[in-house]
Amino acid sequence: MNEQALLHIPDSRYCFAVDTAHVVLRLRVMRGEDIRKLSVVYACKYEFADNRQTAVMERKYRDRLFDYYEASLTLNDVRLAYVFYIETPEESFYFSEDGIAREYRFELGYYNFFQLPYVHREDTIKTVEWMRDTVFYQIFVDRFRRGDMGKKDGYINLDWGEKPKPNSFAGGDLRGILEKLDYIQELGIGAIYLTPIFPSVSNHKYDIYEYHDVDSQFGEKETLKELVEEVHRRGMHLILDAVFNHCSSRLPQFQDVLEKGKASVYYDWFHVRGERPDPEIMNYECFGSCTYMPKLNTGNREVRNYLLETACYWIREFDIDGWRLDVSDEISHDFWRQFRAAVKEVKADCVVIGENWHDAYPFLQGDQYDSIMNYAFTKACLDYFAFGTFGSKELSDRLNELLMRNKSTVNNMMMNLLDSHDTHRFYSQVGGDKDKLLAAAALEICYPGTPCIYYGTEIGMEGGYDPDCRRTFDWDEDHWDKGFGKLFRRILALKKEKALGWGGVNISSCGELLCLERSYGEERIILLHNGGRTATNLREAEGSDFCILVSNLQDGEKLLPGGFVIIKREEI
Amino acid sequence: MNEQALLHIPDSRYCFAVDTAHVVLRLRVMRGEDIRKLSVVYACKYEFADNRQTAVMERKYRDRLFDYYEASLTLNDVRLAYVFYIETPEESFYFSEDGIAREYRFELGYYNFFQLPYVHREDTIKTVEWMRDTVFYQIFVDRFRRGDMGKKDGYINLDWGEKPKPNSFAGGDLRGILEKLDYIQELGIGAIYLTPIFPSVSNHKYDIYEYHDVDSQFGEKETLKELVEEVHRRGMHLILDAVFNHCSSRLPQFQDVLEKGKASVYYDWFHVRGERPDPEIMNYECFGSCTYMPKLNTGNREVRNYLLETACYWIREFDIDGWRLDVSDEISHDFWRQFRAAVKEVKADCVVIGENWHDAYPFLQGDQYDSIMNYAFTKACLDYFAFGTFGSKELSDRLNELLMRNKSTVNNMMMNLLDSHDTHRFYSQVGGDKDKLLAAAALEICYPGTPCIYYGTEIGMEGGYDPDCRRTFDWDEDHWDKGFGKLFRRILALKKEKALGWGGVNISSCGELLCLERSYGEERIILLHNGGRTATNLREAEGSDFCILVSNLQDGEKLLPGGFVIIKREEI
Repeated sequence: MNEQALLHIPDSRYCFAVDTAHVVLRLRVMRGEDIRKLSVVYACKYEFADNRQTAVMERKYRDRLFDYYEASLTLNDVRLAYVFYIETPEESFYFSEDGIAREYRFELGYYNFFQLPYVHREDTIKTVEWMRDTVFYQIFVDRFRRGDMGKKDGYINLDWGEKPKPNSFAGGDLRGILEKLDYIQELGIGAIYLTPIFPSVSNHKYDIYEYHDVDSQFGEKETLKELVEEVHRRGMHLILDAVFNHCSSRLPQFQDVLEKGKASVYYDWFHVRGERPDPEIMNYECFGSCTYMPKLNTGNREVRNYLLETACYWIREFDIDGWRLDVSDEISHDFWRQFRAAVKEVKADCVVIGENWHDAYPFLQGDQYDSIMNYAFTKACLDYFAFGTFGSKELSDRLNELLMRNKSTVNNMMMNLLDSHDTHRFYSQVGGDKDKLLAAAALEICYPGTPCIYYGTEIGMEGGYDPDCRRTFDWDEDHWDKGFGKLFRRILALKKEKALGWGGVNISSCGELLCLERSYGEERIILLHNGGRTATNLREAEGSDFCILVSNLQDGEKLLPGGFVIIKREEI
Repeated sequence: MNEQALLHIPDSRYCFAVDTAHVVLRLRVMRGEDIRKLSVVYACKYEFADNRQTAVMERKYRDRLFDYYEASLTLNDVRLAYVFYIETPEESFYFSEDGIAREYRFELGYYNFFQLPYVHREDTIKTVEWMRDTVFYQIFVDRFRRGDMGKKDGYINLDWGEKPKPNSFAGGDLRGILEKLDYIQELGIGAIYLTPIFPSVSNHKYDIYEYHDVDSQFGEKETLKELVEEVHRRGMHLILDAVFNHCSSRLPQFQDVLEKGKASVYYDWFHVRGERPDPEIMNYECFGSCTYMPKLNTGNREVRNYLLETACYWIREFDIDGWRLDVSDEISHDFWRQFRAAVKEVKADCVVIGENWHDAYPFLQGDQYDSIMNYAFTKACLDYFAFGTFGSKELSDRLNELLMRNKSTVNNMMMNLLDSHDTHRFYSQVGGDKDKLLAAAALEICYPGTPCIYYGTEIGMEGGYDPDCRRTFDWDEDHWDKGFGKLFRRILALKKEKALGWGGVNISSCGELLCLERSYGEERIILLHNGGRTATNLREAEGSDFCILVSNLQDGEKLLPGGFVIIKREEI
């Protein structure tokens, strides 16, 4: 046995409560390790010496290096103590906090059993229920739709349809989104995520100089109120973008420091070295190296209170449904803990989604964010569909690995995306191949979590890196590929299936076939991708576990473009 | 290479800031893996594509399965991105969030480099400075010393010196401790930890029925005040025992629920199933299965506020220096986060020490406890000195493994102990072998952390499991082994050495020799243990790294009983 591959960590992604009666345990072993049987021996911690139970664990996930066994326990007593019992063809071991051993002294277990000492409701991650069957739609506001034709529009310097430059303004606004709510809803969207809408001199508005107003380019506070009401009337949700890592250098507080230096009461709102901030010598911290975006000192209690109050204000007064958090990984855990407590106090089922491009496990313990923008999923899709660095095996391995980064309760809320205002458009990354885009969208919809569609993906909008990925939406329906659009909607509609919002997941590969299966009770959704080859390849895989499920398919008849098959149980 | 053994987790014990300019990185590989060179390639995350630095990592820790390489980086920019570069005799790899690869695309690094996105002062674990060179002394109050001869003593049912039974009362009190502060200080003690002193009908007082008073058996509030003042006058510290998981069934709030059932305003203070609590059918949660100790519902805001206020009260009014937290692992993270914030607000350098017998990593992230009672260290010492299950190699491996459970900033505050009121006395576990006790004490003093001596260890008090480990202190000096006492004090005195409070650590074994080295600048403390054999064994190990250090020893002349050698650098 590869003992170094063995991993279990109590009170972690390897051991967590899904509610106060159910606990999931995971044990990692080397991929392909010859395990005859793997069990967990468990009890109330005060009865571990003499009143134990045993549950068999099953292999549920496999990535490049590891197999992950899992068991779900139903607890009568929430004070859980346990060790694992690993049976291989040659020998058997107990596995405790002290490692493996042939014998285990249960009467001394209190020194080294694994434990989840008590399952607390407060520590248990709660799923934001509406996230389960929702598809998000991300709108870069300046580029989606202009609705207000009467506003002062001298700032607009880009003709609708022209390619944007870094400083282009096209005139999109909240009224435009209001006008297109029917369109968005009909698309199959359940929630809208807007890039920042607060006063700012840029088109992206990630440099805010007034946190309590709506930028007049986008509308009035009343327009936002109307928009949220209309969204809610449709049973949809809307979240805004919280830019709390940094602000605009035009923020009055920063201006005050520029003017008065250390004498300003706002001096400690920022990270300034020396008497006063000076963009020339960059003697203050900022986002990246953008001197017009000074970093806010969120360690300062006044700043923290100001930002928390801001976050609560928009929820309380406008009833928004949560926040996407810009550059959230550069703000402290301490801040996000207080942020979460504050906003959930105002609206318990609002959602908090971090912009962390990397493994964000420390932020996803239930005390900070609910979710992150899952750029690791993006990268896996790029590697498979665009870069050609992954085959189906590598994709299956990676998708499993990403699931193993977090507790399943968190996985169910991950905001999975193919692209955003911060990346190339996925459609362009796959060279304008609509089949690949559809296939990737199907994967995005079926993978655990909440998919997020970047505006215009549904009409095949193209675009390279910023600012090219922020083109204006082409509302001329004659330009749209209707067949593509229909398939795209058909894929999004799947998200309403119980199996996708509530179901378990099993991802594997067999030859060139990728298989992703979601199941909830009797319901099952199976997604197969044959790497873009013909349907006949499907039969080559017969004999593997999941191939039984497709054996009664007519050649290709249920194939979507891109080589994807989506099978609902009743069709099997 | 055993790829499954490779482990690095950003923002964890494998990557943490020790202050806002210094970050420690650790990479775990298989023990004995043939590494030619291991480096970390790092940069400010916004300059990762084109402005990187490299630092070599060194192997610093080795346990049974793994080697741990470490590097300490000094950062100019606190937005750290990095990947590792592993050179083996055959091939070289980059190691990123996506695993190992022969090539690495730095320009796409933002998808998968490791990162510590920003070092925040608020998230950085602060060492409670006075813990560094302190030795704790744990006193079970009823059994240490009776000082107040005028108190009502009808409750006393045990003659001093007789063996205690579960319900024995011997009369020890705070006045007794006050009388013996000179004794305690002369012993080399810097801090005192008292088991609970609040009103309770038991001798141990872990069932409190009044959280805002001192039990009259032990004294008055004024006595406590006097005690803390005297302790502080000596430059020492004192912590109390917070029993917040459960209370006594005599607590007025529980009595109210017993009487009024669901109609009681305190009904939700506890976890009751049904109309009213009934000890007969145990329809409410309690500590273990002790119905006289109902569990407090710390998820209830009123209860939480009550307990937090209690914790702050004793710090504010009596100036105590912190809390040991009883059964802390069965209370929520949520509660301890609020607890920490509340008590540190009152006294920034108070210490918070959990009673977690197991790996307590999730509680030790800087937002909950500072430290725990390190019973895993206890167990390692038992395995080596008492049970004979460990040789020097196994002990070295385990001691390293325990260090790798936490960030080094936490290790420096771990409360290391050989025994307590909840275990057999260590001296009895080693069969009354004073050499072994001294050797174990020396290890306890030299190991990173803050040692805690259970009262009476210094006079060789014996005792089995509770209640036998809670015997009365024998104040008749004629019964004491003076030679042993002198050596014991000599060992405790070492804790004042810079190397032990601030130094790095290196633990290894060679044959039957265990070697623990602490170093701080030019200062070095080396502790060798030869497994209880004669000094000549030391020479057998010549040729290993550390044996040079003892080669100019005369046979045995610096040996302490038990086979321990403690060498200060000037003696080498």
